[in-house]
Amino acid sequence: MIDVLIIGTIGYDTVETPFGKRIKALGGSATYASVAASFFSKPGIVAIVGEDFQEQHRQLLSSKKISLVGLKQIRGKTFAWGGKYEYDMNDAKTEFTDLNTLLQFDAHVPEEFRNTKYVFLANTDPVLQLRVIEQLKQPEFIIMDTMNFWIQTKKSELLEIIKKVDVLLMNDGEARMLFNTLNLLQAAQQALKLGPKFVIIKKGEHGALLFSDGKHFNAPGYPLEVIKDPTGCGDCFAGGFIGYLAKENKKDEATLRKAVIYGSIIASFNAEEFSLDRMNTLTYSEIEKRFTEMKEIMEF
Amino acid sequence: MIDVLIIGTIGYDTVETPFGKRIKALGGSATYASVAASFFSKPGIVAIVGEDFQEQHRQLLSSKKISLVGLKQIRGKTFAWGGKYEYDMNDAKTEFTDLNTLLQFDAHVPEEFRNTKYVFLANTDPVLQLRVIEQLKQPEFIIMDTMNFWIQTKKSELLEIIKKVDVLLMNDGEARMLFNTLNLLQAAQQALKLGPKFVIIKKGEHGALLFSDGKHFNAPGYPLEVIKDPTGCGDCFAGGFIGYLAKENKKDEATLRKAVIYGSIIASFNAEEFSLDRMNTLTYSEIEKRFTEMKEIMEF
Repeated sequence: MIDVLIIGTIGYDTVETPFGKRIKALGGSATYASVAASFFSKPGIVAIVGEDFQEQHRQLLSSKKISLVGLKQIRGKTFAWGGKYEYDMNDAKTEFTDLNTLLQFDAHVPEEFRNTKYVFLANTDPVLQLRVIEQLKQPEFIIMDTMNFWIQTKKSELLEIIKKVDVLLMNDGEARMLFNTLNLLQAAQQALKLGPKFVIIKKGEHGALLFSDGKHFNAPGYPLEVIKDPTGCGDCFAGGFIGYLAKENKKDEATLRKAVIYGSIIASFNAEEFSLDRMNTLTYSEIEKRFTEMKEIMEF
Repeated sequence: MIDVLIIGTIGYDTVETPFGKRIKALGGSATYASVAASFFSKPGIVAIVGEDFQEQHRQLLSSKKISLVGLKQIRGKTFAWGGKYEYDMNDAKTEFTDLNTLLQFDAHVPEEFRNTKYVFLANTDPVLQLRVIEQLKQPEFIIMDTMNFWIQTKKSELLEIIKKVDVLLMNDGEARMLFNTLNLLQAAQQALKLGPKFVIIKKGEHGALLFSDGKHFNAPGYPLEVIKDPTGCGDCFAGGFIGYLAKENKKDEATLRKAVIYGSIIASFNAEEFSLDRMNTLTYSEIEKRFTEMKEIMEF
């Protein structure tokens, strides 16, 4: 039995940063989010890969007790993305996006996953995100992410699905674009009017903001001396966030605030090394140590 | 008797933002910082103005119980600055800088100010900042600000004076430039090695970071729905910060953290209206209300 359902991509990333380059490293939103969630609970993923998906990567995910029942492997190549981070490390410049087998992704949720209460819809086509929701039997808490591409090409579908989720998760640039304002507070207020009980705006190294009706929480970014590769940090945030909620099995404001802090912490570890390297060595006691530090950083 | 000494500029600002335009409004670092400090303590300023300095502006400062004994008025025109904020409101594009009488500023500290314990050296020529320090008899806590121009033109003098202060205050762009790193944690660590006990890095709407040996405090920006004019926010931060410290007459880490929050709050009010308009209506109970809100915003 899983307790968190994650729908997203598994892919091979070719990433260059000022600290080095990795060719065809394991990546993708479902990968990062499920590994992050696995520190707190038992995730299952719905994703698609091609023939080139490596056995060692399947084993890596399995070793984290991530259920791969919803992982479909078909003919063709796995989704691949290439990006480069310049000196300021804030935004990746996409160098290529080969959708490959992702074009055949139907977001079919296996029967045994359909009762899952906590669901993360990582960034994908809003049409697929909606299809997932329609398959769920008793979702209690759905979080969705999106990106600029869908805001530009499928805005009306996107607005429809936002009405059906509990948490809308976006980065600051996306929030500004979707709600046509530079002011994040205004963007969040507009988002809340659409229906979600909570809105989370990720601000990279500046942390994350959690908005609910009349309330606001500001989580700082954990201060890192070296950021080697920010790829996957947003999905690690989401995975850590929903993983913690599922573990606590609570959806109140106080628990969400702690979940935001845990999400930020997992993301901060992820940025310390390329690909999933840091996730692979990370221990729960390291996470707890950083949680205590975050308390100290915010105390006055 | 004053309890905070502030050295900086008084000027007339011509400012344009997406919300309007003001021509020759009262501005300048000493103006904003002293008005901000006046909510907590009794500031005195050392600054220079020309013949065109208006009586109503002298009265405005006096009405805040700011000592003007160190305000020199000479022949010529008052320092004037013009700037324009684009839609994103983060950085002003300078349209003109007329130094005028500022060229004759000698930073002479009146005898009766020389025993002041809490001192803010607003952004000016490091040579003048040093001259001020040399005139002080028993400074206990000196805060200095600076800007890109001095980093580029007088870096060695700047590094010398940094060694003599208790707090180095800079914005994020300046910190990155001065210490030649994009990483703010690294920049702060390098700054602390020069001698100051504390380093504060202002991040505009993202808040401020306070660093001391081995410790770190992250204050969020107060969430504003409308930012009309950010001119003077950095100086309001500094004025509120040192004003609170002088009121408490304490220099420990816990008091500094509270002072950072009060500085952020005064800056947030200042951005709500043009020039000093919001400062002129601001009450202490409004400040205290926002202090409570800041606690709630950071609580988890």
